[in-house]
Amino acid sequence: MSTILKLFQPLQPKHEDTGCKITVVGAGQVGMAAVFSMLTQGVSNNIAIVDVMAEKLRGEMMDLQHGSAFMNNAKINASTDYAITAGSKICVVTAGVRQREGETRLDLVQRNTDILKVIIPKLLEHSPDTIFLIASNPVDILTYVTWKISGLPKHRVIGSGTNLDSARFRYLLSERLSIATTSCHGYIIGEHGDSSVPVWSGVNIAGVRLSDMNPEIGTDKDSESWKDLHDMVVKSAYEVIKLKGYTSWAIGLSLSQLCYAILTNANSVHAVTTYVKGEHGIEQEVFLSLPCVLGSSGVSDVIRQRLTENEQTQFRKSAEMMAKVQSGIKF
Amino acid sequence: MSTILKLFQPLQPKHEDTGCKITVVGAGQVGMAAVFSMLTQGVSNNIAIVDVMAEKLRGEMMDLQHGSAFMNNAKINASTDYAITAGSKICVVTAGVRQREGETRLDLVQRNTDILKVIIPKLLEHSPDTIFLIASNPVDILTYVTWKISGLPKHRVIGSGTNLDSARFRYLLSERLSIATTSCHGYIIGEHGDSSVPVWSGVNIAGVRLSDMNPEIGTDKDSESWKDLHDMVVKSAYEVIKLKGYTSWAIGLSLSQLCYAILTNANSVHAVTTYVKGEHGIEQEVFLSLPCVLGSSGVSDVIRQRLTENEQTQFRKSAEMMAKVQSGIKF
Amino acid sequence: MSTILKLFQPLQPKHEDTGCKITVVGAGQVGMAAVFSMLTQGVSNNIAIVDVMAEKLRGEMMDLQHGSAFMNNAKINASTDYAITAGSKICVVTAGVRQREGETRLDLVQRNTDILKVIIPKLLEHSPDTIFLIASNPVDILTYVTWKISGLPKHRVIGSGTNLDSARFRYLLSERLSIATTSCHGYIIGEHGDSSVPVWSGVNIAGVRLSDMNPEIGTDKDSESWKDLHDMVVKSAYEVIKLKGYTSWAIGLSLSQLCYAILTNANSVHAVTTYVKGEHGIEQEVFLSLPCVLGSSGVSDVIRQRLTENEQTQFRKSAEMMAKVQSGIKF
Amino acid sequence: MSTILKLFQPLQPKHEDTGCKITVVGAGQVGMAAVFSMLTQGVSNNIAIVDVMAEKLRGEMMDLQHGSAFMNNAKINASTDYAITAGSKICVVTAGVRQREGETRLDLVQRNTDILKVIIPKLLEHSPDTIFLIASNPVDILTYVTWKISGLPKHRVIGSGTNLDSARFRYLLSERLSIATTSCHGYIIGEHGDSSVPVWSGVNIAGVRLSDMNPEIGTDKDSESWKDLHDMVVKSAYEVIKLKGYTSWAIGLSLSQLCYAILTNANSVHAVTTYVKGEHGIEQEVFLSLPCVLGSSGVSDVIRQRLTENEQTQFRKSAEMMAKVQSGIKF
Repeated sequence: MSTILKLFQPLQPKHEDTGCKITVVGAGQVGMAAVFSMLTQGVSNNIAIVDVMAEKLRGEMMDLQHGSAFMNNAKINASTDYAITAGSKICVVTAGVRQREGETRLDLVQRNTDILKVIIPKLLEHSPDTIFLIASNPVDILTYVTWKISGLPKHRVIGSGTNLDSARFRYLLSERLSIATTSCHGYIIGEHGDSSVPVWSGVNIAGVRLSDMNPEIGTDKDSESWKDLHDMVVKSAYEVIKLKGYTSWAIGLSLSQLCYAILTNANSVHAVTTYVKGEHGIEQEVFLSLPCVLGSSGVSDVIRQRLTENEQTQFRKSAEMMAKVQSGIKF
Repeated sequence: MSTILKLFQPLQPKHEDTGCKITVVGAGQVGMAAVFSMLTQGVSNNIAIVDVMAEKLRGEMMDLQHGSAFMNNAKINASTDYAITAGSKICVVTAGVRQREGETRLDLVQRNTDILKVIIPKLLEHSPDTIFLIASNPVDILTYVTWKISGLPKHRVIGSGTNLDSARFRYLLSERLSIATTSCHGYIIGEHGDSSVPVWSGVNIAGVRLSDMNPEIGTDKDSESWKDLHDMVVKSAYEVIKLKGYTSWAIGLSLSQLCYAILTNANSVHAVTTYVKGEHGIEQEVFLSLPCVLGSSGVSDVIRQRLTENEQTQFRKSAEMMAKVQSGIKF
Repeated sequence: MSTILKLFQPLQPKHEDTGCKITVVGAGQVGMAAVFSMLTQGVSNNIAIVDVMAEKLRGEMMDLQHGSAFMNNAKINASTDYAITAGSKICVVTAGVRQREGETRLDLVQRNTDILKVIIPKLLEHSPDTIFLIASNPVDILTYVTWKISGLPKHRVIGSGTNLDSARFRYLLSERLSIATTSCHGYIIGEHGDSSVPVWSGVNIAGVRLSDMNPEIGTDKDSESWKDLHDMVVKSAYEVIKLKGYTSWAIGLSLSQLCYAILTNANSVHAVTTYVKGEHGIEQEVFLSLPCVLGSSGVSDVIRQRLTENEQTQFRKSAEMMAKVQSGIKF
Repeated sequence: MSTILKLFQPLQPKHEDTGCKITVVGAGQVGMAAVFSMLTQGVSNNIAIVDVMAEKLRGEMMDLQHGSAFMNNAKINASTDYAITAGSKICVVTAGVRQREGETRLDLVQRNTDILKVIIPKLLEHSPDTIFLIASNPVDILTYVTWKISGLPKHRVIGSGTNLDSARFRYLLSERLSIATTSCHGYIIGEHGDSSVPVWSGVNIAGVRLSDMNPEIGTDKDSESWKDLHDMVVKSAYEVIKLKGYTSWAIGLSLSQLCYAILTNANSVHAVTTYVKGEHGIEQEVFLSLPCVLGSSGVSDVIRQRLTENEQTQFRKSAEMMAKVQSGIKF
């Protein structure tokens, strides 16, 4: 009689699932930071990781599994085979190629579209009720691409968008004001990256709008140069990449927060990439970031911010740019 | 146009559920301590509370809801109507009457059986796939009663049992050894309460058995009187009740831990009340505590401890007592 | 050779302290809910509880200690002797008598002042660098009283104030808006209780002011009756007390949050009772709630909200009331 | 009047410290995984990182700071200047060079000793009361080296040792037994790495020793080949490095757990590198892993396991090896 038979009197076979499974596609720096954030912050204890690099994938899986005693017995599975993703509540997509030197933006988008054309149907096949959370760049366009490929209703296709830009913005506000980041309220909307729009009209501390005290805030006329904070947000991704080679921790944490909102059905508000046709005068079928209510059905509502004319103009310019790139994509 | 219509652009109706709902029956001290432990420890953020005292119930619900901002936006619902319990993964039962002066144990059991005959079918009606976790006393017999009434397979009917006795035992060990409670390993099995059995043969620190260093440990012959620790465990419920009128925090935390093991499909080992016929020579159909593997299917396995002859005798005596009381219950 | 000597090779005596000790004075419903919140939410794992009722105190201590394995090995100490409070970073005071039938407010204040005259010097004696967090009612006046008795600088004497009223307000907003409580921003300031002032001008979702969409919000002219939310906040303490006999969970969680901000030096913003002379035209030396920056030095800054004339008038009226009561107190 | 002056009414300057500061030396994969584990698991919210690579360091710092809103407003500081480490409760050292091809072990030790000779005095200068937690490899010898260089009492110089090996061992046990890692108890002692010793005599589930059911367990004679589990532990570091290029997550989590035990004064038991002269017949002044009680004074006690003759022989062999290498080090 084996040790195991001597030790256990079995009553009932064990379940495989915990009901809060998350799949992360892509075991690169962003994907792994997201997985590690979710596990250490208790967002999920059941994560499947998919990638095409079998060895790297196995190494990451083993390294995480060795730490399972330190992470509430988390279950981590990894494979090149999408079968392991079955039954995921959320599929986070971090896979994709980077811009080559001299490559046009459209060429990059096309290459990543071709990758999503492989990934998305496989994920859907194994998790037909899943919510997609896209982090691959350029995130706004690739969220649109995922929506097109998947054929899902728009509330179930979300991009990580400017949730990270907003977090960077709040951190810089907190540094300047010497108070907690979580007490600094403000949103960056629009495109994740260069053409993002800081909504200065809504920036507030305890409900006190900075623009009420400094009406020129965020403009070139402001003698206190608060505009620099947004400039630093735009530059910070480039700067971190220049300094350490990639960004990982903050985007991983941002994805972890968004998954938490969805899995716990929080109905909390976050700036994420969503379908914006009809908002702020947008007429194109594009995806950009706006503050959204996130819960277990995905995006239930978009918050209608009151943008200044200038903010609206910038937002629409991003939309035009998106539409232009999108029109060249071959599905 | 109302404020709400101006604020939100709706995309999709919100979900009601989070997939990790727990129902607690009984809004007394034990039930409320359990609810509060689960909410503050992040075990569930979706709890339904049922009781017959509508006013008290509403007061507790409001008091918890006022704190939802401090508990990750937890959803708390309470009603005398079992409809609110629909879709619960676990139903924790803390309801029941207390022993009247002069009342026999059997009379008490019968009165609580009559209560369970009302509660259990209603819970099952609204959550046919639920797992029952019984905390009402006498817990071992009432777990048996729930099993009988519900007609569920045994792995889905669990009693809180000696998980609490074991926690008290480890705390007392930790005080005597001046090390962390979580580094003191030991189980109390059998009946929750007076006839509980401390398994001294398995008590260990870092795998070092105290009984290897002190072969008389736990017996009357032990000059170091370690036996006192178990005596204190048995007395402690009485003492706490004498001092503050009831016990609440520790039992609430114990229930929270067991729910965590089940909801996260942890497959962790806990001493809980389970069906023990066939174990350690028990021939009666009784429920008593043994170390069990707990996961999302409930109890998957019972751990077969190597008991000393003396430990076995005590365990069997508890079983006989249980069987005797059970034989008098009218269903 | 004893079991313990055989088990351990000692290297160095153990420390007593963890550096984040909190004392809670008063083992009633509020005090115990605060202690349990702090322990289960991981705010502190080292708590001393003081009360005059030795038996009740010992019962609560034992009940918590029995749960230490479920709370990261928390250390809980309780005594009628203030010596156990030595070295506390924060002293939370929940002790005090309740209003007798027919008793004037001033008489109540005097009785509780007499209690604080005993408690505060003893706490200061054992923890000269501590921060006081007062929760006893009427909290605003008793915070002033503590300031007077202690002789401490004002940044180290804080009242729990309208942090709870604000939490209730946000919960009711969240119910009406169907979004997360933590995404509903709004402050109630002034007196904790009947004359509290909701700052409607600052209520916002994602920076979108409700008053921009509904200029009459919070007034009697508002056809949508948002004012009812504040009325419900004012009534809710009374209602919970009527229904369950006391309030406990929400105030306990509120105290836990404030201690977390202080212990982690968060510099986060909370509406707490502070010295308000000089703010919003107040000329009296009174304590009332305003949004404050909380960190390890206590209150570092008060946030200067832009109040409407009506809000200012209400705020000043509270201040006058406080000053009047204070003038009758005998120290 | 500036926006900030309009917003805040200052009461008192803010503190810099939170009382639970940790310094991590080395911003490589291990150091950063440790920092991220500590921040996301709430072990500390105040971390200083030191490295010689200024750019990489700045990139990591910015990336973490951008995530501060997701990590309870954590404060992260990084510099090549040790001044930022002032007042650290724990200094975690992950710095060091890797073995060159063809390099002898002694040569590697000497190169890392030379690095520690620079680092340790600087850390001590700014945090004279700190505890050292060494993770640089070969960890056992470098813990000895740190003890020598620092001149600190042995309880304040700890190596991460076989805490990780033990976690890997428990994970493999959990896989084989299909139960939670945290319910699998067992220690690996001795040298971190190749000559580590699994203490099969203490491996147990719920106090049930596997060796009682399978007396040959862990030996070559065991027909069930449990020995393979230890072989896999030894190989796993090599395998992960081969697959992903380095190990990071599990060692980072292990360091986080050890810091938690120290900062919360848990007095919990962990297998860490400590001074072992006098234990199990060791006569040399060497550092090896044994189960130790960890609290805020560092190692307070070493647990005296009952090793089999074979386990003792292996342990002593490791000690001899250590002593031999140590004798060649030039301080």
